[in-house]
Amino acid sequence: MDKLIITAALTGAEVTREQQPNLPITPDEIAEAAYEAYQAGASLVHVHARKPDGTPTQDIEVYREIKEKVAAKCNIIFQPSTGGAVWHTAEERIQPALLKPEMASLTAGTCNFGPDVFMNTQEYMESFAKVMMENGVKPEIEIFERGMIDNALRMVKKGLLKTPIHFDFVMGVPGAIMGEPRDLMYLANSIPQGSTWTVAGIGRFELPLAVMAIVMGGHVRVGFEDNIFYTKGVVAESNAQLVARIARIAKECGREVAAPDEARQILGLVK
Amino acid sequence: MDKLIITAALTGAEVTREQQPNLPITPDEIAEAAYEAYQAGASLVHVHARKPDGTPTQDIEVYREIKEKVAAKCNIIFQPSTGGAVWHTAEERIQPALLKPEMASLTAGTCNFGPDVFMNTQEYMESFAKVMMENGVKPEIEIFERGMIDNALRMVKKGLLKTPIHFDFVMGVPGAIMGEPRDLMYLANSIPQGSTWTVAGIGRFELPLAVMAIVMGGHVRVGFEDNIFYTKGVVAESNAQLVARIARIAKECGREVAAPDEARQILGLVK
Amino acid sequence: MDKLIITAALTGAEVTREQQPNLPITPDEIAEAAYEAYQAGASLVHVHARKPDGTPTQDIEVYREIKEKVAAKCNIIFQPSTGGAVWHTAEERIQPALLKPEMASLTAGTCNFGPDVFMNTQEYMESFAKVMMENGVKPEIEIFERGMIDNALRMVKKGLLKTPIHFDFVMGVPGAIMGEPRDLMYLANSIPQGSTWTVAGIGRFELPLAVMAIVMGGHVRVGFEDNIFYTKGVVAESNAQLVARIARIAKECGREVAAPDEARQILGLVK
Amino acid sequence: MDKLIITAALTGAEVTREQQPNLPITPDEIAEAAYEAYQAGASLVHVHARKPDGTPTQDIEVYREIKEKVAAKCNIIFQPSTGGAVWHTAEERIQPALLKPEMASLTAGTCNFGPDVFMNTQEYMESFAKVMMENGVKPEIEIFERGMIDNALRMVKKGLLKTPIHFDFVMGVPGAIMGEPRDLMYLANSIPQGSTWTVAGIGRFELPLAVMAIVMGGHVRVGFEDNIFYTKGVVAESNAQLVARIARIAKECGREVAAPDEARQILGLVK
Ligand SMILES: [Zn+2]
Ligand SMILES: [Zn+2]
Ligand SMILES: [Zn+2]
Ligand SMILES: [Zn+2]
Repeated sequence: MDKLIITAALTGAEVTREQQPNLPITPDEIAEAAYEAYQAGASLVHVHARKPDGTPTQDIEVYREIKEKVAAKCNIIFQPSTGGAVWHTAEERIQPALLKPEMASLTAGTCNFGPDVFMNTQEYMESFAKVMMENGVKPEIEIFERGMIDNALRMVKKGLLKTPIHFDFVMGVPGAIMGEPRDLMYLANSIPQGSTWTVAGIGRFELPLAVMAIVMGGHVRVGFEDNIFYTKGVVAESNAQLVARIARIAKECGREVAAPDEARQILGLVK
Repeated sequence: MDKLIITAALTGAEVTREQQPNLPITPDEIAEAAYEAYQAGASLVHVHARKPDGTPTQDIEVYREIKEKVAAKCNIIFQPSTGGAVWHTAEERIQPALLKPEMASLTAGTCNFGPDVFMNTQEYMESFAKVMMENGVKPEIEIFERGMIDNALRMVKKGLLKTPIHFDFVMGVPGAIMGEPRDLMYLANSIPQGSTWTVAGIGRFELPLAVMAIVMGGHVRVGFEDNIFYTKGVVAESNAQLVARIARIAKECGREVAAPDEARQILGLVK
Repeated sequence: MDKLIITAALTGAEVTREQQPNLPITPDEIAEAAYEAYQAGASLVHVHARKPDGTPTQDIEVYREIKEKVAAKCNIIFQPSTGGAVWHTAEERIQPALLKPEMASLTAGTCNFGPDVFMNTQEYMESFAKVMMENGVKPEIEIFERGMIDNALRMVKKGLLKTPIHFDFVMGVPGAIMGEPRDLMYLANSIPQGSTWTVAGIGRFELPLAVMAIVMGGHVRVGFEDNIFYTKGVVAESNAQLVARIARIAKECGREVAAPDEARQILGLVK
Repeated sequence: MDKLIITAALTGAEVTREQQPNLPITPDEIAEAAYEAYQAGASLVHVHARKPDGTPTQDIEVYREIKEKVAAKCNIIFQPSTGGAVWHTAEERIQPALLKPEMASLTAGTCNFGPDVFMNTQEYMESFAKVMMENGVKPEIEIFERGMIDNALRMVKKGLLKTPIHFDFVMGVPGAIMGEPRDLMYLANSIPQGSTWTVAGIGRFELPLAVMAIVMGGHVRVGFEDNIFYTKGVVAESNAQLVARIARIAKECGREVAAPDEARQILGLVK
């Protein structure tokens, strides 16, 4: 079994500082949070940019600043979001991929996201995939429902995605796939052999799905984007605190945690 | 095991007469197709209205005419679509439910539909469910992905849907859940005990999923909306031809086919 | 999807003529039943020998007579049982494999069989596999529980079995694995890619599991060994009647039925 | 989710002190090991008796001595084995149930156990169940294959077992069901609602299956009977060391560990 890649999803587009007082918002805060997560065991950081007032932004310059500040601190893999917030246009969303990061997220279909719709039409997906391919960016394919796996495989057939694919199962969003153990088992059995996968359980699903991934050979994403609590009703002190717990459980389970360069190896990234 | 309810989805919003020369389009054609399907074993008819030129319409008057013409021929359960075509507004889509049919379809979430998006926001769903409840219409909850089941269960909690729910698993649409046997097994195991379910396999998935439903205790939808072929490359002569095959297979499998009043009993409809 | 191999399990070791008046017992009756099954669509015949009084026997001479009489009538694949009756010794059970038939059954583990125990120790299995390999007999690996699949794979590692393996899932025996659709899905997903499989549902499980196999790409075994009824409470007229129903359903499902030489191709038999 | 019941299976019938130098063998050693396991978080102890030379024995007097010595140290639930060693007779195996312990194990079917056969005929099972019912002993139903669940349910129908049943899934024995995550998911989905279950993964399967059980709402058995290693190639210092790791992981996962009286509540035991 490969070493465990822990991704820290530090900020997201939805969480506010009212909900989570320790949310990193500015480039400096995000870089610092990335560094702490790295020290706690994360080898990959999934980043959403915010304006100083906390509003989500896909501004390439903000992403550039974060990217540089993170790189100045450690060699963690930098993965900006191309999901943005539900109200961002496709043009805005793809901006950070132009920075040629090692990875970027790419959501492979449309679904409800609570009262909103997270819009990822075939046209969006294909244009995002094309930009990433041209810029040497490895996509992390975000899967909110089973059909999105097939959407990704269709892009493989069209030459827009390379295999092996790295999937991220985002589970427990109201409006998309549930986050019970059997749901993860189903998704993990629905991807082509040779693929790699991470699970990002939302809210109360984060921890149990992470634990299952550890023993099933998947990888784990935690962080304030997905879950702001450390235990029921208790907000986490930091993203690093959530990362550290996963690292401890992995160690107890006899699964080693990947350093960034080991994660690059597993994901087929050329540094 | 309950008797088998066969639904005929006669027309849909996408198929053209160029693709399927035997497609029923006018109210008279649709009523005649419904009657033939009824004779072949269907107890429920899922209806999309079209304008004379074939364009999909949600015009209540066209649905009224179809409803009356069908009722004049046989006592098959009439279930208009509130899905309409992907470009219809929510206001247009809900029109046929105002006719107080016994049932109407209600799609429980948003997904890609090939290059289009089939938009069913939480707001749409909830408003549709409310109209149906006020008009004594039993919804058939159309499920294109696993998360839509939970969307429906949330509406139950809000008092917008009554249990037991009748689900329709629409499987194999490009952009939504696949149509392999294991996908059907997964969905069938994801609904509350006491629910009823139908499967509508799209294209090449229609027949194998129908056969599985027959032996698993589910129900079956076939028809030109979902599949225009009788065998590979050979367009079907009529919706009734597709219905008749399911009735024959059910008989071979020792499962009796429900007449309309038996289907009403199974679905908890008051006639 | 390969053409469908229908196996007729004509006689078994348990059924009596009191239960099933049309049970073939003598070599002449068995050969005639094999021929009728062949005409109805079977390409493989699974044979248990009986003494004239109906007692099960593993006597090589009786098997030889059956084998010759079957071969005189048609080119159906001849597969004697090495399971015998639960009270036969291993030495008795392996006898028919010495006739160098194209195939023979080989049960890959021990389980309860109602009040009895169907004994297949590791020693039995390995000795049977060795005899079959020496005699050029392809085993059909009979699986009554999931662990038996791994028993077979251990024999592959020891060089006692060749791949691809042909499995027969015997489902619904009291004491062994159940025969619900989800049980078949589980077993079918537990074998190595490239394997072939047949399902033999016992009693009321025969027909639904057969139908699932047809659409899942498996193969089907029916016959008096597994099930004596045509419909609930109505004993079948002949093994051929059960075969013919499967052939009709397969045809309705668009799956062609394999002739014996086509079955040989699928199973990798050299004739 | 209920608190987590950790069972310590201290000794078993197979392990030798050559394999595991810290194996408890004498009543004093077993009582001491039970006490250490209790301190580490175990609320239930599964016991096999041994003669002073290490040979497994089902002698009631040895079990009596162990039972009393354990009770003198702590209030852990005492569960003797009625499995014994593969060569014990049924009469020998049932002896410890006559001591009227709160629980005893009862294996619900026959399977291969490596080169041996673990014999549990219908007659054995039913006689064991009867003795337990007469002596007020709650059976823990040991499941080595899926069909054994149905064997247990048949005993419920015959009035030989009360519901809710407490199952123990023993997974990864060579000859019986495998111990992959999907195998556990399958078994856990195969028992009646309202049942409780524990998993005992054998060897390398112990830890991953334990972890899955923690997040799936099952319970966990560890100990030298199932696994002698702490990490790959490193023998554990004590049963308690294995228990303590499970307790730590449970705590990390936010699942509290049950004290003996809490376990009695969950299992429906009257103390
Ligand atoms: Zn994100
Ligand atoms: Zn429709
Ligand atoms: Zn047989
Ligand atoms: Zn034991």
